[in-house]
Amino acid sequence: MVPIVCLVGKTAAGKTTLAEGLIAELGRRGYRVASIKHDVHSAQLDQPGKDTWRHAEAGSDLVLLSSPQRVTMFKRVDHDLALNELARLIGLDFDIVIAEGFKQTRAPKIEVHHRGAGSFLCTPEELLAVVSDGPLDVDLPQYAPDDVAGLTNLIENTLLRTRDKEQVVLCVNGEALPLSLFPKSVIASTVTGLVSALKGVGGVGEVEAIELSIRRKARDGFRS
Amino acid sequence: MVPIVCLVGKTAAGKTTLAEGLIAELGRRGYRVASIKHDVHSAQLDQPGKDTWRHAEAGSDLVLLSSPQRVTMFKRVDHDLALNELARLIGLDFDIVIAEGFKQTRAPKIEVHHRGAGSFLCTPEELLAVVSDGPLDVDLPQYAPDDVAGLTNLIENTLLRTRDKEQVVLCVNGEALPLSLFPKSVIASTVTGLVSALKGVGGVGEVEAIELSIRRKARDGFRS
Repeated sequence: MVPIVCLVGKTAAGKTTLAEGLIAELGRRGYRVASIKHDVHSAQLDQPGKDTWRHAEAGSDLVLLSSPQRVTMFKRVDHDLALNELARLIGLDFDIVIAEGFKQTRAPKIEVHHRGAGSFLCTPEELLAVVSDGPLDVDLPQYAPDDVAGLTNLIENTLLRTRDKEQVVLCVNGEALPLSLFPKSVIASTVTGLVSALKGVGGVGEVEAIELSIRRKARDGFRS
Repeated sequence: MVPIVCLVGKTAAGKTTLAEGLIAELGRRGYRVASIKHDVHSAQLDQPGKDTWRHAEAGSDLVLLSSPQRVTMFKRVDHDLALNELARLIGLDFDIVIAEGFKQTRAPKIEVHHRGAGSFLCTPEELLAVVSDGPLDVDLPQYAPDDVAGLTNLIENTLLRTRDKEQVVLCVNGEALPLSLFPKSVIASTVTGLVSALKGVGGVGEVEAIELSIRRKARDGFRS
């Protein structure tokens, strides 16, 4: 799974400004960055009357607008997706994900804090670091809001140096399944072996990335 | 792979109106529908100043906005994605995809035509059917623009009745690999067997859906 770091903090604490700084700095250091913004207001970004809006209104639960510069996806959901569900949508083509919000997740979190703004959202045990406009009496790495380079160093050292050589992500019935080293290695080598033996694989060169989806049961094609 | 049908035709032929009709009618018949609109103009749907826009401007190549009602994804791409690349973004949780455009694809296509509008975009051999405001001298099923029910019957009979009981989609190094019956069955049963034997799988019940991603090579974390 691509490592995720969450920026948490109260409203107007400066999460988005910090996200911009980290995204830009990580990009300058050569990492491929994806990001997530949690939106409590469910903003409708599509515009009434647009063709994509017409598709969605007619009942399309996922509308893609594809152009040579960007792909925009509008996906209807029935609940607030958890970070691991969102990570599946992002895929594996990134080095790191910067998320704003998600204070309840177990992913590594950095809290953006103002002195005088009262209590923290998270306990120190939940946090990787604190960003604050003045020294705080907590036993955590502390960074000034403009010390983006320092915070990026921390993220590099804790989340980006330790990545596995071989990444395996397995979801069963929609749930991500944590894998320890042995099953991960067995699955990776078995599937890579099977795939490498297929006709047609020679043409794509050395097998570096495999994505496999299996649906076992016939769906009846009808909603319940 | 989820079946895709493409609606092709000249500008203002009525593709989006037909797409709306088909999406709604397929939905009424209980199918889960996704859709794709090809956008030659690369419309920027995100709004300057919004937090998602700020993330993208800072260098995030994929920005997700997650809310309880919908997830919106802005993904930067470096080329016009082919239908099979877009299908990977859509996943397998749908019964059918209605696409507007993509006249060069080998996916089944329906051409929307006006009498007097001159030549067809596609040859008859490439088409599943024609939608026209009057009879045409072509050896293809023909439908009036308002015969959405008839066209939906055709789509059901040609694309939705013949779906495999077991769906297997395999992408290697980013390319979808067509599988014949034997390797498909070997891969599905091997991987399902491996996964079913894992600790923790008992808790998720019978294995119905597996998604597996493997990256074999260490990425150095730096752009070339």
